[in-house]
Amino acid sequence: MNLHGKNFIGDQLESGSSASFRALSPLDSTPLEPVFHPAELKDVDAAMQMAEAAFASYRETTGAQRADFLEGIAVEILALGDDLIQRAHRETGLPPARLIGERARTIGQLQQFAQLVREGSWVEARIDTALPDRQPVPKPDLRRMLQPLGPIIVFGSSNFPLAFSVAGGDTASALATGNPVVVKAHSGHPGTSELVATAVRRAVVAAHLPAGVISLLHGSGQVIGVALVKHPFARAVGFTGSRVAGRALFDAAAARPDPIPVFAEMASLNPVFILPEALRERTSQLAEGLRTSITMGVGQFCTKPGLVVGVQGPAFAQLQKTLAGLLEAVAPGTMLHGGICAAYHQGQTHAAKVDGVKLLARSQTAPDPKQTQGEAMVLTTDDGNFRRHPELAEEVFGPFAVLIAAESIAELEAVARNLEGQLTATVHGSPGDLERAGNLLRLLERKAGRLIINGFPTGVEVCPSMNHGGPYPATTDVRFTSVGTAALARFVRPICYQNFPAAQLPAALQDGNPLGIQRLVNGKRE
Amino acid sequence: MNLHGKNFIGDQLESGSSASFRALSPLDSTPLEPVFHPAELKDVDAAMQMAEAAFASYRETTGAQRADFLEGIAVEILALGDDLIQRAHRETGLPPARLIGERARTIGQLQQFAQLVREGSWVEARIDTALPDRQPVPKPDLRRMLQPLGPIIVFGSSNFPLAFSVAGGDTASALATGNPVVVKAHSGHPGTSELVATAVRRAVVAAHLPAGVISLLHGSGQVIGVALVKHPFARAVGFTGSRVAGRALFDAAAARPDPIPVFAEMASLNPVFILPEALRERTSQLAEGLRTSITMGVGQFCTKPGLVVGVQGPAFAQLQKTLAGLLEAVAPGTMLHGGICAAYHQGQTHAAKVDGVKLLARSQTAPDPKQTQGEAMVLTTDDGNFRRHPELAEEVFGPFAVLIAAESIAELEAVARNLEGQLTATVHGSPGDLERAGNLLRLLERKAGRLIINGFPTGVEVCPSMNHGGPYPATTDVRFTSVGTAALARFVRPICYQNFPAAQLPAALQDGNPLGIQRLVNGKRE
Repeated sequence: MNLHGKNFIGDQLESGSSASFRALSPLDSTPLEPVFHPAELKDVDAAMQMAEAAFASYRETTGAQRADFLEGIAVEILALGDDLIQRAHRETGLPPARLIGERARTIGQLQQFAQLVREGSWVEARIDTALPDRQPVPKPDLRRMLQPLGPIIVFGSSNFPLAFSVAGGDTASALATGNPVVVKAHSGHPGTSELVATAVRRAVVAAHLPAGVISLLHGSGQVIGVALVKHPFARAVGFTGSRVAGRALFDAAAARPDPIPVFAEMASLNPVFILPEALRERTSQLAEGLRTSITMGVGQFCTKPGLVVGVQGPAFAQLQKTLAGLLEAVAPGTMLHGGICAAYHQGQTHAAKVDGVKLLARSQTAPDPKQTQGEAMVLTTDDGNFRRHPELAEEVFGPFAVLIAAESIAELEAVARNLEGQLTATVHGSPGDLERAGNLLRLLERKAGRLIINGFPTGVEVCPSMNHGGPYPATTDVRFTSVGTAALARFVRPICYQNFPAAQLPAALQDGNPLGIQRLVNGKRE
Repeated sequence: MNLHGKNFIGDQLESGSSASFRALSPLDSTPLEPVFHPAELKDVDAAMQMAEAAFASYRETTGAQRADFLEGIAVEILALGDDLIQRAHRETGLPPARLIGERARTIGQLQQFAQLVREGSWVEARIDTALPDRQPVPKPDLRRMLQPLGPIIVFGSSNFPLAFSVAGGDTASALATGNPVVVKAHSGHPGTSELVATAVRRAVVAAHLPAGVISLLHGSGQVIGVALVKHPFARAVGFTGSRVAGRALFDAAAARPDPIPVFAEMASLNPVFILPEALRERTSQLAEGLRTSITMGVGQFCTKPGLVVGVQGPAFAQLQKTLAGLLEAVAPGTMLHGGICAAYHQGQTHAAKVDGVKLLARSQTAPDPKQTQGEAMVLTTDDGNFRRHPELAEEVFGPFAVLIAAESIAELEAVARNLEGQLTATVHGSPGDLERAGNLLRLLERKAGRLIINGFPTGVEVCPSMNHGGPYPATTDVRFTSVGTAALARFVRPICYQNFPAAQLPAALQDGNPLGIQRLVNGKRE
């Protein structure tokens, strides 16, 4: 595995600025070879120029060609073999087994989008044929389909070095729909990013696509990231990360002379509400489920439950006790990088100092700073105190949660009513609990993009029905998902073709339906 | 016809502030009775509180209930009879025949959305059933559908006092999908707005819907409009108007603690490109078509062609000559209000003063200021001069266009390449011209939301295939249309329901498909 540490400007490798950095392994705090070079502003412009140039021909490729390309990327990623898993492990601290699973998901996403665009109905073709004799005015022939937006900026995410980075869900949905992509690599896993970019480039060459269809730049979000978002050729942005960084990108995009959409997936508490009968009947099972969901992957999932709400009483006390015992036994784990680990401990400390908050439990083993470890921690308080301290509703990214003892169902509902937007909201209830939970469920529909009954929010299925998105600050655009096949809707726009002769129409809209896709013709599904 | 001049806060009539204004008839510059009262900020809050309260039950109504409601609005608008047409005529100067046509379109839109939500498939139901035995982890049951966003702010538009105002396309698509609406009336036609609001309120009562489902406020865009957009309960905004006003609303929405989407339809030149063979073969026909499209409705359509580009030569000279003759014979017409008329003359003057620009023709009859008239005017210049003076590419709202004599096809394409975003772009060409126009058509796909061949951009069909939207500054969100059935996509968001028992699922997602709608079940269309 020879890494060069350079930026990919399409098929050109550029050394960027004279500045340099190394990845630091969170496993043992050692710097990793080689040296990486942050891009310069001229590299941003060069990558965007190439992306814009590539768009002219890439947007004209057929669905089958793009499907072959996506499947080619999947093959090339697999061909990187254990080198990729080992580098990602050293850069992120994530266990190889998890990374092998994440690679499977990444490949699965690429294949799912390949299937979708090979089939072709995603363009939502609509045809209304002419009525030349209509009174008082003739009706023209109108045909409409979805078309790609243009160059898309994708920010690699630290917590999914494969599935939401260089060739992750954002890139796959942008490429699938005919958009070139410029990726800003996450500084936590530059080597992993370079390896995947190399795989994507091999697929670009094999598919005879223009070089500018993908570029990869290293560098800071505030400089290189913002410059990409502000570049005149950028048409949309995909981002997963912190609320502060996501909002900064959103603001930069909104302040452009021509604003562009930003799909930033940011902060979410993923509240879990436990109703009384379920609490009594499944106390231990709930405690075990919470322990797992709060601490899996060292709590570094966007859907980690950070808030658990139940009605006070003996069953709630029992839940607390059981959960406390389970959490104390959870060993601290290596977090993704030093910055996340420091922010985690700061968030813990900040929350634990809030008046009226008690420590319920923390990992009995102390975290090892050299191994960049975070320990599990759960705090507890009552609903009144939670309401008085809105800072307790801020996401603490890591194996951390706040347990709220609500005085009554009404107070539990009040907690729901006062929440900001969420990716998910979960309700545990017996059939009887759920029959009485209409108010709560309706409240939660306003607050979250995905509602879960008697399950846990971690584990995001990649499928057509998934919605991974939610009201602000969970995301900056509640109308779109970043996971599942609907994710491609973020990077397309409708175009209507009026009175076009057959030869000038895109194949998807031609008479006789040459692509054999589903279409809406004169109001009827065909 | 007794008008009260008050604001509708749901079912309450409020006199607003002590300030007052009258509509001024552009037909004869006379003030019209009665006095209208701008809303105060407390009225904004009251209307939004009522809208939010109404949303709780309105979002739970069935598609059939909302369809009945929309059809009820249509009936009540018709029942206003000639009073509505006469008041709109006096307030806007638009001829009664045009207003009768616009009323038919308004009613047609309401009925089309009613049909769509009664049928119900618009929710895009997707179901992925559980695989409890899947390895390594079970697959949960996931079901996803579109749900309403919440209270929507609609700005009445001056140029469509019926079809894009109180019960126009924005309101119809928001109400159809289960969202309450708060309308900011356009100050140009407050009486028309009150009449339509009265009709909507009758339909609200007849349908036993909560009062807050619609409110109507008078007042300035900068004060009342911005306050509505910034209100915490507002979830999205629909606007048609000027670039400056649209951008101000967009900026206000983007600066919110929780940004919300703004669908502002703003400025568009709607360029028309005439290719050489078509120019030679259809010179007079093109001149007549341009005359009509530039001057119909006194040029006050968002899709009025404001830029015409052809290749210089004898045919182009002949087009100029014929068009000049036709335009000189066009009588000045009453514009919508004094502000638009003043801005029109300012825009004309500004453009005519640009170096190297020549007057091709103007209406021979001088406009009568008392009748708020605008006269037709076309300027002409060459592509080099057009490129040197970007101010010539600014929309002049009214019966005005700039004719560009390009040196060659390459220069004509260069004009296209340098354009900002447009609602429409039109190409006139013979079959041979069009065979050679691949470059131009591909350029225009990047620039516009609707492409027209051998037609004219005015005339926006309301149907599933329509796209009325385009890249900035044509609109603030290229991914959506404000006309046609797809307009409802602006005001909805997906929600995913995981592991929901049947009793807690929305009907659209229940087993057995009780609504009989089209759904995607385990990847198959059913």
